[in-house]
Amino acid sequence: MNWYLQSGKESDVVLSTRIRFARNLINYPFSTKLTKEEAIELIDKIEQCNIGFDLKLFKLSDMDGITKMSLVEKHILSPEFVLNDNESRAILINDEENICIMINEEDHLRIQVLGAGLDLDNILNVIYEIDRKLEEILEYAFDAKYGFLTTCPTNVGTGMRASVMVHLPALSMTGNINKVLEVVNGFGMNIRGIYGEGSQSQGNVYQISNKSSLGISEEETIKNLNVITEKIIEQERLARKYLAKNSIELEDKVYRSFGILANAKKMSSVECNNLLSNIRLGTDLGIIEELTDLKVNKLELYSKPANLQKYLDKTLDDYERDIQRAYIIKQIIKED
Amino acid sequence: MNWYLQSGKESDVVLSTRIRFARNLINYPFSTKLTKEEAIELIDKIEQCNIGFDLKLFKLSDMDGITKMSLVEKHILSPEFVLNDNESRAILINDEENICIMINEEDHLRIQVLGAGLDLDNILNVIYEIDRKLEEILEYAFDAKYGFLTTCPTNVGTGMRASVMVHLPALSMTGNINKVLEVVNGFGMNIRGIYGEGSQSQGNVYQISNKSSLGISEEETIKNLNVITEKIIEQERLARKYLAKNSIELEDKVYRSFGILANAKKMSSVECNNLLSNIRLGTDLGIIEELTDLKVNKLELYSKPANLQKYLDKTLDDYERDIQRAYIIKQIIKED
Repeated sequence: MNWYLQSGKESDVVLSTRIRFARNLINYPFSTKLTKEEAIELIDKIEQCNIGFDLKLFKLSDMDGITKMSLVEKHILSPEFVLNDNESRAILINDEENICIMINEEDHLRIQVLGAGLDLDNILNVIYEIDRKLEEILEYAFDAKYGFLTTCPTNVGTGMRASVMVHLPALSMTGNINKVLEVVNGFGMNIRGIYGEGSQSQGNVYQISNKSSLGISEEETIKNLNVITEKIIEQERLARKYLAKNSIELEDKVYRSFGILANAKKMSSVECNNLLSNIRLGTDLGIIEELTDLKVNKLELYSKPANLQKYLDKTLDDYERDIQRAYIIKQIIKED
Repeated sequence: MNWYLQSGKESDVVLSTRIRFARNLINYPFSTKLTKEEAIELIDKIEQCNIGFDLKLFKLSDMDGITKMSLVEKHILSPEFVLNDNESRAILINDEENICIMINEEDHLRIQVLGAGLDLDNILNVIYEIDRKLEEILEYAFDAKYGFLTTCPTNVGTGMRASVMVHLPALSMTGNINKVLEVVNGFGMNIRGIYGEGSQSQGNVYQISNKSSLGISEEETIKNLNVITEKIIEQERLARKYLAKNSIELEDKVYRSFGILANAKKMSSVECNNLLSNIRLGTDLGIIEELTDLKVNKLELYSKPANLQKYLDKTLDDYERDIQRAYIIKQIIKED
């Protein structure tokens, strides 16, 4: 089963974990100076590494738009990566979709490993292993003083960005979310809505990630991120306990969201996310029996525009999508 | 079965019909001048008439508050009637609750007959029959020129107020309701929200009734009311057809209302009425299969504050009522 349909540790609050390493090869200009011919040559070179992990290479120019967008929605590819210059770009990805290497994104290689729940330590081990295998074959741009060199200076050093997706509905409802955001920032971490920088949170899901990759080791960064995440989990759970005391209000909110989700005849992606946030709080607190966290994961995935179209295997405009989304939601809810 | 849990003619638009006759006896002062002793004597006199129709007498002072309010909610008693001076007041009512005579309301007698759907002609026959039987025994205050004399001059003449309750959700949704209200007023009829004069419509239910009882016969009034009601039925059905063309929007609205109603853990009476209005439109148009008009009638009745408490046979405060209402709604929806 794909990792994003599974449940992991602390998954009542932490939806997923991701670590990515930015790497560049010597003997090739960085992406801003790279010609199309060099980019294609580089793709071939990476393909020939053959490092295992069941990775298969797909050129972006061979992938259809819906498939590409469905990977963006899964936070496996970046929006910028799929939008331009498809000829020069490729990915190495496994069937489970928990490992994906973007070739010729901002850096030559963006190695990513993802997993359900809070899983920073395991994922760090996996990405180290991938990185070592590649390093046996390729020569990375590395500076003895600064560390790994990258296109954007903010990634120089470890080239690592580690992040966790957290679901914070109770902190939002009790109005304590802003205090939490401040604290996280104070600890050298970024926290932001799930659809990229500066974007509003949808469905109360936030991404926490390390700010700095310079002058701090991978292990230390992961340790800090673990600590801050555990703190947030604790705060969110406290807020949930507080809400559970006024449980009829919470139950009412959870069940109304379920009632709308299970009965609407058309539904936007944004509304769906917000309803699922309430319902997920209900499944996590054992308030609602009609759904499980895993089903909520499935609903969340297949209600996204491109994944919905992938699931139905047809192209739909906005209006049709809203209708089909409502239909698919009902199907998934009824499934055993 | 009680009349208000049944379905009648044109009941896709007309919920119920009511006719009342205001009557006063000679030899007794009108209500404003009536002493308590005279009022009690008058009650005895009426009880002794024994006109049949399975009518039983209940003194208001012997009835508990919830029972009285439940009859107000059914539009069988007026709010003013139950609030003050219970010692001087009584009702004659049958088990089916389609016939009720209020004794010592604004007039000595307020004879009322109610029924489901559009049923003006039948109800006029029934109330004539009751009125004739009473007139054989009692002497009514009657003036050869003006007709029946009443406490308030607006009722002098026939003493009749005939009314129909209409459910106009489509005219509201299409924004044509104000035009209809104007037309109805132009035809010498009043139209107003269901909770009395000047009140806002709840759940898109309006009461249409004759303005005048002077210089116009009962039959003529009923004929006019029938004509205007048929016109409104026609307009509402046209508006529903129009909405049905954009049926996904309508279905969505109907099913979302159903989803909330069937899943909420607490619900106010006002919200319930508004949701039931949408759902009733759905049952009438055959859009929703989960409920029938009869069940909507039942939901509408038992969700009202006093009837809810009658049904549960206990006294509840506002907060408890909202919770119990949500619970009872779910029970009724699940019933066979």
